[in-house]
Amino acid sequence: MAHCYGCGRLNVHGHQIQSFWDGDESVCRFLPGPDYVSIPGYVYGGLLASLIDCHGTGTAAAAAYRAEARAMDSEPPLRFLTASLHVDYLKPTPLGVMLEVRGKVTALAGRKVTIDEWILAGAETTVRGQVVAVQVPGTLVRELLERGEQI
Amino acid sequence: MAHCYGCGRLNVHGHQIQSFWDGDESVCRFLPGPDYVSIPGYVYGGLLASLIDCHGTGTAAAAAYRAEARAMDSEPPLRFLTASLHVDYLKPTPLGVMLEVRGKVTALAGRKVTIDEWILAGAETTVRGQVVAVQVPGTLVRELLERGEQI
Repeated sequence: MAHCYGCGRLNVHGHQIQSFWDGDESVCRFLPGPDYVSIPGYVYGGLLASLIDCHGTGTAAAAAYRAEARAMDSEPPLRFLTASLHVDYLKPTPLGVMLEVRGKVTALAGRKVTIDEWILAGAETTVRGQVVAVQVPGTLVRELLERGEQI
Repeated sequence: MAHCYGCGRLNVHGHQIQSFWDGDESVCRFLPGPDYVSIPGYVYGGLLASLIDCHGTGTAAAAAYRAEARAMDSEPPLRFLTASLHVDYLKPTPLGVMLEVRGKVTALAGRKVTIDEWILAGAETTVRGQVVAVQVPGTLVRELLERGEQI
């Protein structure tokens, strides 16, 4: 979604994360700013949850386009929202390190996509997560477009 | 934790959420700013996850002090981090509405506290979540204090 705080290209105050395919996995790189602290020296868990969340819905959309063998700028637009989010914090994630969020689609059925994810700080996996994403209904997508919203 | 982006009183760029007891439940009120958008008009899911996360660790700490019949400013300090976070987005959460995050401790055993939570937008429950929080080891608390950190 274009205005999303996590991944929207039009949200100038947001994180503007971008996700890409890397073979069968999706990947997103993000360097948290110094304010995103939990205990001194480590990344805020809410930010890590946000990365899992947005990388999950982005991966879901990319997977849905791929399943239909369509380019991601083709019409009608496919957008996803999070139905559920689970995050396991395996160990503290250090601040000041470029993080890599990786995802793998484990189920794609109807309007629902499940993505398993993990966050790497260097070679260490510090977080594991899962997102269940559901496709935004076409009626809502059309309504937003008709209101002149970018999505 | 004093510097936490979600609930730290010393993080001037963070959310600075505050949690309080309301009988057997804990409560936190938060009005998301207009940037925290997902689809236009609705609150960003990553922020809702952050509220569940920080209200959970805050509730865990408060419950641990209460279990020891201690004031929250008594020594040694008890602090908690999130081991796992689960969030179910039941329906979109409207922007521009004061949100109420409520929590209930469902298990307190050793260093681990489990908190069930929900977010109300007016009378509607839009989000349900669960946090499993673990107590920060006393050795780490002492190390941070010895380094002159506020916790």
